[in-house]
Amino acid sequence: MKISKHLTSRLAIILCTTFTLSAFAQQQPYEYPPTLLDELKQLQKATLASDYAYQQLAHLTNNIGPRLSGSLQAQAAVEYVAAEMRKAGCEVTLEKVMVPHWVRGIETGELVQFPGQAAKTTQKIVLTALGGSVATPAEGLTAEVIVVENFAQLKALGRDKVQGKIVLFNAIFDERLAAQGEAGVAYGQAVAYRGGGASAAARLGAVAALNRSAGTGGMRMPHTGALNYAPDAPQIPAAAVTAEDADLLAYLSAQGNVQMHLTLTPQTLPDAESYNVIADLKGTEHPEQIIIVSGHLDSWDLGTGAIDDGAGVVVAMAVVNAIKQLGLKPRRTIRVIAWMNEENGLRGGRTYAKDYAAQTANHLAAIESDLGAGHPIGFTGHVSANTLTMLQPLAQVLRSQGASIVRRVDESPGADISPLDALGVPTFAPMQDSRTYFHYHHTPGDTLDKVKPQELAENAALMTVLAYTIANLPEALSR
Amino acid sequence: MKISKHLTSRLAIILCTTFTLSAFAQQQPYEYPPTLLDELKQLQKATLASDYAYQQLAHLTNNIGPRLSGSLQAQAAVEYVAAEMRKAGCEVTLEKVMVPHWVRGIETGELVQFPGQAAKTTQKIVLTALGGSVATPAEGLTAEVIVVENFAQLKALGRDKVQGKIVLFNAIFDERLAAQGEAGVAYGQAVAYRGGGASAAARLGAVAALNRSAGTGGMRMPHTGALNYAPDAPQIPAAAVTAEDADLLAYLSAQGNVQMHLTLTPQTLPDAESYNVIADLKGTEHPEQIIIVSGHLDSWDLGTGAIDDGAGVVVAMAVVNAIKQLGLKPRRTIRVIAWMNEENGLRGGRTYAKDYAAQTANHLAAIESDLGAGHPIGFTGHVSANTLTMLQPLAQVLRSQGASIVRRVDESPGADISPLDALGVPTFAPMQDSRTYFHYHHTPGDTLDKVKPQELAENAALMTVLAYTIANLPEALSR
Repeated sequence: MKISKHLTSRLAIILCTTFTLSAFAQQQPYEYPPTLLDELKQLQKATLASDYAYQQLAHLTNNIGPRLSGSLQAQAAVEYVAAEMRKAGCEVTLEKVMVPHWVRGIETGELVQFPGQAAKTTQKIVLTALGGSVATPAEGLTAEVIVVENFAQLKALGRDKVQGKIVLFNAIFDERLAAQGEAGVAYGQAVAYRGGGASAAARLGAVAALNRSAGTGGMRMPHTGALNYAPDAPQIPAAAVTAEDADLLAYLSAQGNVQMHLTLTPQTLPDAESYNVIADLKGTEHPEQIIIVSGHLDSWDLGTGAIDDGAGVVVAMAVVNAIKQLGLKPRRTIRVIAWMNEENGLRGGRTYAKDYAAQTANHLAAIESDLGAGHPIGFTGHVSANTLTMLQPLAQVLRSQGASIVRRVDESPGADISPLDALGVPTFAPMQDSRTYFHYHHTPGDTLDKVKPQELAENAALMTVLAYTIANLPEALSR
Repeated sequence: MKISKHLTSRLAIILCTTFTLSAFAQQQPYEYPPTLLDELKQLQKATLASDYAYQQLAHLTNNIGPRLSGSLQAQAAVEYVAAEMRKAGCEVTLEKVMVPHWVRGIETGELVQFPGQAAKTTQKIVLTALGGSVATPAEGLTAEVIVVENFAQLKALGRDKVQGKIVLFNAIFDERLAAQGEAGVAYGQAVAYRGGGASAAARLGAVAALNRSAGTGGMRMPHTGALNYAPDAPQIPAAAVTAEDADLLAYLSAQGNVQMHLTLTPQTLPDAESYNVIADLKGTEHPEQIIIVSGHLDSWDLGTGAIDDGAGVVVAMAVVNAIKQLGLKPRRTIRVIAWMNEENGLRGGRTYAKDYAAQTANHLAAIESDLGAGHPIGFTGHVSANTLTMLQPLAQVLRSQGASIVRRVDESPGADISPLDALGVPTFAPMQDSRTYFHYHHTPGDTLDKVKPQELAENAALMTVLAYTIANLPEALSR
């Protein structure tokens, strides 16, 4: 998951409407055929009992590994998911997507001058380049580090004090908010500096930018992620330091002159050809009507992309697996999409919306999971009240797994599906327990062990019953 | 802190005698002069309110940094502590200690062949060389990884299956024990493979040894630490992999052949001259009688040595600071020692016991703190029942800070003071809350922020009142 306004709104803005689905059962009852309800319960039970999603996730993370756009592993993952979906009985298409191809290089930080320094001692700074960063000279650069807490402080310093310096944006991730389940808001606040810090600093003449990692955890792990160079600013190298190293720099720079030697040697290669994997389980009655279930297949390169977002992909794959396993038939087409390039470009989501623009009206819903695999308490939707009413009987099924809360949000609750959302397609996402998500997010610690098999199965069950409901309702989902 | 039987016994073996100090008040009351009790309360109050220890720790960790034996930083730390103790009014001696001088180099692990591998993909393994490890060839070595859970499994494989391989000891740290406050037992179990794994594997022809990190945390952080080459085995390179990478290797090797390219380029340089810092606050009546308060000044090189063991050093420094601040006078000499080389040699503790062998009888007690700076619930002592009886009235003071538990243990409760213990000197250590200690221990995450100022002050208060009591009792502490 990357910078996303959707996330903020999904988790945070206590919006207009939050129900337990049962709460509005009284208002305007919408009846499901008894067979549908029965099938949903069967699907839920089978998915909760299955380790299919977990085994797929183990393969993606352990046998393939990190899957940054343009990498060999990303291509291996495309081929793997396509093959698995064919095996599951889907019609599979690879949709061509040209993606950025950024490759991490050497990344080191060392304090070469600082208050209290003894003769010839230096100190290591743990950092990682931000995705898309340009490189320093190969031999590195040395400059004074100045520390600001926000953009206003930077502006107040002005060009005189910033020129030639390395700027550290020391914005502290609000762990209190994260602990309250509003990690998205905290993330949104911190990520502003990861995304926009480099250009803000460059406009005042800085030679490099650092940001305090946008994440929690406290284990001296740097959190990478994409930066966005503004068109009007010089492009300067940028990296995330760990919370601990940000504290160290703040402590030392408050005492006097701190000089850092910074070496970052990433490369931006020509755009590479990659693919969204599109796998259709064709509808028996309205094959032209589509319900998307999805996650993004690309990941950052430091970890193995288990919570971000292997989990989303395998949960979507599990929808098809469950339906096939029970020999059920969707009336409308369920389309699994493993999106490419969510992390540093959103090219997959944008390409799809363009390629399928003519069929927008036939896209009844797009569901994406991209906030890990913690226990889901329900789902969010950027939809009309009418649409939610049609999904109300789902509560009878989801309540048994503690997932009956539904919240309307005012933006797409997923990044890859946001271009479709902008075209009017109803968008949905599960609402996971994300209290530890930002410990591991975009770090080397995003590995298989962070996903609990049972909680992953709960997410698979939620996505399965939600998608199957929309696919098999007597009438098309209201918009 | 390193491999230590003392730790195991300190935290774990529920030994013969555990009291709250008040519990045996009835048995054999030992009276303190009212002035002493009053002074103890003053000292406790002043220490609890002081940030002296924390500011010293900030300097050691932030302005000096990691302090591995033989490093420039270790020397800077020796000079700094000596100067601070002189400033505080102590007589300072630097006791020469020849220490191992091991320097970390490049350390990389990469899977170059594994089940499910796509063309040309590789996977990174996060690892760190163990202290004292020999190097691989400069260009690294490539070999199959075999995974065992314990020494018995290795032995069962035999030379045929081990010859030419890299052996991973995948012994899982018992987090349940750690969560129950018995981290020392869990550590002792896991550390057997860090300490002895390389030689056990080498005896069967292995070319390198890996151990699953002896620690908790789950953030893909490798935990370094010392290894011990047995005299009868070839010396092979050894490294700790993270828990996550151990899981990955176990998963893949269960599926088939896993080949790793391993590069470790540490160097062992000639022994270096270093020092124990010895700072005496001379006793007014029995200057020849000595109570040692101590921690170890050296640290591993990955973090900045806050919990292991900057905290112990500054807590000992705080004892003198508190006494001086209140204008009190110890009747016997309080000797602050900042030990050198606890982590990879114990040369400081051994040298001291040798240099001061003739004065053993005048060493009334040796106290060391080396288990972080969590809230202390009391202290342990490797002492006679009589000795404890003399310390019983301390309960009146310590109970107010929740530290009134005393436990007799059957070995020295600190590594550096164990050579003195072997000579019959009563030894003591605070008993800290260590539930998170092994998250950070020997990792890059051992940094200042892991120490809570108030808990550090509690440790300082405990060591201060314990030391001052022994220094000012009417009679010498019983042995």
